[in-house]
Amino acid sequence: MEKLLCGIDLGGTKLSAGLISAEGCIIDKEVVYDHVTKSEDEVVEQITGMVRQLIARNDLKESDLMAVGVGFPGHIRYRDGITITTSNLEGFKNYPLRKALEKNFSIPVLVDNDANAQALSEYKFGAGRGYDSMIFLTISTGIGAGIILNNKLYRGVTGTAGEFGHTIVKPGSGLMCTCGNEGCLMACACGRALPHLFREKKEKGFETKLTIPPDFDYSRVDGKLLKEGIDIGDPVSVSVMNDCADIIGIGLYNIFQVFNPPLIVLGGGLLCWGDGYFNRIRRKFYELARDMIFDKIEIVESVTGADAGLIGAAALILE
Amino acid sequence: MEKLLCGIDLGGTKLSAGLISAEGCIIDKEVVYDHVTKSEDEVVEQITGMVRQLIARNDLKESDLMAVGVGFPGHIRYRDGITITTSNLEGFKNYPLRKALEKNFSIPVLVDNDANAQALSEYKFGAGRGYDSMIFLTISTGIGAGIILNNKLYRGVTGTAGEFGHTIVKPGSGLMCTCGNEGCLMACACGRALPHLFREKKEKGFETKLTIPPDFDYSRVDGKLLKEGIDIGDPVSVSVMNDCADIIGIGLYNIFQVFNPPLIVLGGGLLCWGDGYFNRIRRKFYELARDMIFDKIEIVESVTGADAGLIGAAALILE
Repeated sequence: MEKLLCGIDLGGTKLSAGLISAEGCIIDKEVVYDHVTKSEDEVVEQITGMVRQLIARNDLKESDLMAVGVGFPGHIRYRDGITITTSNLEGFKNYPLRKALEKNFSIPVLVDNDANAQALSEYKFGAGRGYDSMIFLTISTGIGAGIILNNKLYRGVTGTAGEFGHTIVKPGSGLMCTCGNEGCLMACACGRALPHLFREKKEKGFETKLTIPPDFDYSRVDGKLLKEGIDIGDPVSVSVMNDCADIIGIGLYNIFQVFNPPLIVLGGGLLCWGDGYFNRIRRKFYELARDMIFDKIEIVESVTGADAGLIGAAALILE
Repeated sequence: MEKLLCGIDLGGTKLSAGLISAEGCIIDKEVVYDHVTKSEDEVVEQITGMVRQLIARNDLKESDLMAVGVGFPGHIRYRDGITITTSNLEGFKNYPLRKALEKNFSIPVLVDNDANAQALSEYKFGAGRGYDSMIFLTISTGIGAGIILNNKLYRGVTGTAGEFGHTIVKPGSGLMCTCGNEGCLMACACGRALPHLFREKKEKGFETKLTIPPDFDYSRVDGKLLKEGIDIGDPVSVSVMNDCADIIGIGLYNIFQVFNPPLIVLGGGLLCWGDGYFNRIRRKFYELARDMIFDKIEIVESVTGADAGLIGAAALILE
């Protein structure tokens, strides 16, 4: 029997473990949400238990798995498998995640950043199939990315390469990022930026068709609320969406100038805003890149969907 | 006898041809300036003549050379050796430079962008020795760069990767780049930006200690004039220098977030502004990167000097 892959998607909301075929199909999976209340060591035991359960209920042995791949929602010191920081989970500051999991398994364990895992999922099984290089950008609450060059993830010295979200594109804009800097891509154009952007439009006198009480807590503005607004043609929502799209368009243009890649794949929650959003990103990109495109560059939406993190974590094994 | 390298640095002002040892030492060289008045085909014949002369006067045969490497001051379609565009020479739009030179030689010919060649020079023989990856940024009239990852130049699909100069860092600033976009790194912080930046400071009421006649042609403001101003503590010059340094600092920070490299090497004419400039660039970088540096990153000045282009063109052969 061909060995299976085991992927773990350790997210800020959801922890998934899955058995994945070498072709990227999910054979079985387990999902929990209570990991967010646990300590790092307890999460490691929880992951171990989930994998053992998957093995048992599919009549497998641990040696039927090639390895365990883990996607982590934050910085990883890749060569050591040590987490550095995460803004999505309690703890996990300098935690030896790989070593802790290795103690529980007789098969290899790989740990990487979740955006890298998603990039690999897209590259092996999605829009990136057939390309040797691509840039993957995920736009959700934050902005993550994975860089694939010559058929391999490019990670840099520490393992933190690809932080396009923290590149500065609007210094002096007053838009502050969680990293403490001003004008990062993430400060201007992801889920975290929406409360500020929405309020700013309102204060500039834009009318909203959404029901916003006078004492509205703007921190509740998220991608989902904006989607409602966009769907009913709310001027505030549409204007915020357009501003975000234009900044992402600048981000893609910068990626193009730096990497001259054949493909950029966009994923993440804010893609739910639909064609108006995606097309505006592309329009801004082409407006800037114009006659500087000498070979075709494709800008497409990711295709691997909701389980990209899980499949990508497994795909780390195939890299 | 160990074979020699032959490098050609085809610049906007100067055309140099050199015989270079495998250790990066110049054995003999030829320099001309009248190539700027010639057609593409004539430049090819001129290069050929210079190489033949070098061969003859050093009692060599063509077969004593490993290959001819050419650094070109503009975009190159790398796989075909066809020039795309250059703003530094007349003509050379879609010119098959490699093929034209190959007709005149029995040894291989390599053609690449001059910043890539300089990056390689620094990597093989300068500040990059011992590193497997580095980013080279040259700040002169324009801004060029070369990306070395895992011991190889990274060129992208066309061969135009590394155009950090055209990444947008100040949209809406009114600072226009030669590419037509607003707020590119090059529009804000290289030689071409100086006339605008200098005039703007003057108009804001900064006093200058430089002798500026009332009908002064601001297009004459260049790195050299600013150096004079900096050396006498001229407020306009120092302020322009500081603004340029801060923007380059943002550029380096963006490079750091994207590549997580162990080394960034800075070269180019504006480095003549001295320690005040270089230290301000570094200060801005560290101010932004702060606690996000998890492994050492070196930011250093290039060491290969005035002949970096020539030596780098030869180094293309060793890549």
